[in-house]
Amino acid sequence: MPNFTRPTFGWHESRMQTRFILINTSHAGNVGATARAMKTMGFDDLVLVAPRWPNVLRREETIQRASGALDVLAAARIVDTLDEALDGMTHLCATAMTPRDFGPPTVSPRAHFESLSKKEHNREQSQGLEAQKVSESGVGFLFGSERFGMRNEDVYRCHACLSIPSNPAFGSLNLAAAVQVLAYEWRLALGGFAVQAAAVEADLADARQVAGMLAHLESALTAIGFLDPQAPKKLMPRLNQLFNRSAITQEEIHILRGVAKAMAQLAEGGRPPHQAPLPPSR
Amino acid sequence: MPNFTRPTFGWHESRMQTRFILINTSHAGNVGATARAMKTMGFDDLVLVAPRWPNVLRREETIQRASGALDVLAAARIVDTLDEALDGMTHLCATAMTPRDFGPPTVSPRAHFESLSKKEHNREQSQGLEAQKVSESGVGFLFGSERFGMRNEDVYRCHACLSIPSNPAFGSLNLAAAVQVLAYEWRLALGGFAVQAAAVEADLADARQVAGMLAHLESALTAIGFLDPQAPKKLMPRLNQLFNRSAITQEEIHILRGVAKAMAQLAEGGRPPHQAPLPPSR
Repeated sequence: MPNFTRPTFGWHESRMQTRFILINTSHAGNVGATARAMKTMGFDDLVLVAPRWPNVLRREETIQRASGALDVLAAARIVDTLDEALDGMTHLCATAMTPRDFGPPTVSPRAHFESLSKKEHNREQSQGLEAQKVSESGVGFLFGSERFGMRNEDVYRCHACLSIPSNPAFGSLNLAAAVQVLAYEWRLALGGFAVQAAAVEADLADARQVAGMLAHLESALTAIGFLDPQAPKKLMPRLNQLFNRSAITQEEIHILRGVAKAMAQLAEGGRPPHQAPLPPSR
Repeated sequence: MPNFTRPTFGWHESRMQTRFILINTSHAGNVGATARAMKTMGFDDLVLVAPRWPNVLRREETIQRASGALDVLAAARIVDTLDEALDGMTHLCATAMTPRDFGPPTVSPRAHFESLSKKEHNREQSQGLEAQKVSESGVGFLFGSERFGMRNEDVYRCHACLSIPSNPAFGSLNLAAAVQVLAYEWRLALGGFAVQAAAVEADLADARQVAGMLAHLESALTAIGFLDPQAPKKLMPRLNQLFNRSAITQEEIHILRGVAKAMAQLAEGGRPPHQAPLPPSR
């Protein structure tokens, strides 16, 4: 399985480890949903500190909400204390308000991750481009319990307090929803995954093809009596603008020419094509 | 209640409506979690098209997962067809891959929302700054069912297919998690909510205060025999660098001066302050 925490795409290949640390989590569903959210963004290192249910990784709700992220659950560790969750982590992000008295700066995820990713990039560059020379670094994201959030003494250990900008009157994201947003932002800061392009990118019509279609359409609209050639007003320029705004494709030009042809045929007394009599059977 | 879909902060006040439209949703929990995710980002217009459970807005799981977003559930509409959900919506975003044959362009949420928000800004500017002159516009986000996603015929009606960049080997976000990410990105594109700053922003120490503290510390470290003044090596410059990197505050300077003072007192034969005898009682 590829190690998605170290992507080989994006603007640089970071050697940073990423770990999600859930402290005193109560709801099994949130553990499962966290595993799923992590995996969708290519992260796989999950540690639970003193969860409410010691068997939380095997509970039915956990597995159900994890959807296909069972590998993340299988590799997750359960530990008794936060200390045991922090090996290799050189930068700790609390998901909490900073305590009133003092504490790490409160920052927005996007701005902080951009700065963190650039610092790490510079560090790796200055240590040398060969993997062997670069010392390990790791980011740990800490999430407190659903009801009480993080304890101040845990926040004091962190380098930053992440605050997802939210409705001042209702700012409380669900735990796994917060994991999803942060995993998404951090993945983008690390270089991101490519957006899956559509299978087909249609060929744009050029201005000459548009003009030819419009001439065809104009004569058909005249033939059916919609357009008065003595008083055309601005109909054709208006249609020209409409098709310009829509960035019309070559295939769509063919469709509209077909429509024009059918209108003209009908006006000349012929039957529209789909009402033409069937050819005699043999 | 303030109407959060038209924020009065951020780089411009958009008049765009925002609606979340869930089509054929199966899981009550996802409806509740969607309401919560919307509300955290200040959106309140939710329409359900033919949900699996006609009473989904009143189901226990819905209410539980909505947490405090009961007002969003209370205002939500249930309709039979997608058509009934689209009044006022001038731009539709599918959350789906574009169909293989043709369809709206597949775009990343961040890039698309930025472009959409700028276009709307320009439109509003060109229509005039007075609210009365600006015609209404609205963005609808469409989400298909958990198992089958969106039907092609619904995707064909949309202006864009949003693709949240995700793990190529495991790209399937939970429905409400996708709502959370898109609501977050769209809110940021509209100008965003402010990050709640910490209560206290500590005063930084200036270089002179740092130098004074270091001198104090140097003499204390000499007094306790840790620093040899004949061979100080690079200890003090190293500590200077450490405190520079940490952007040391004035309060922390006082703490370190207190430590230096206690060390010096101990070295002079005095007792450390907290072991000093209590003053005689009166």
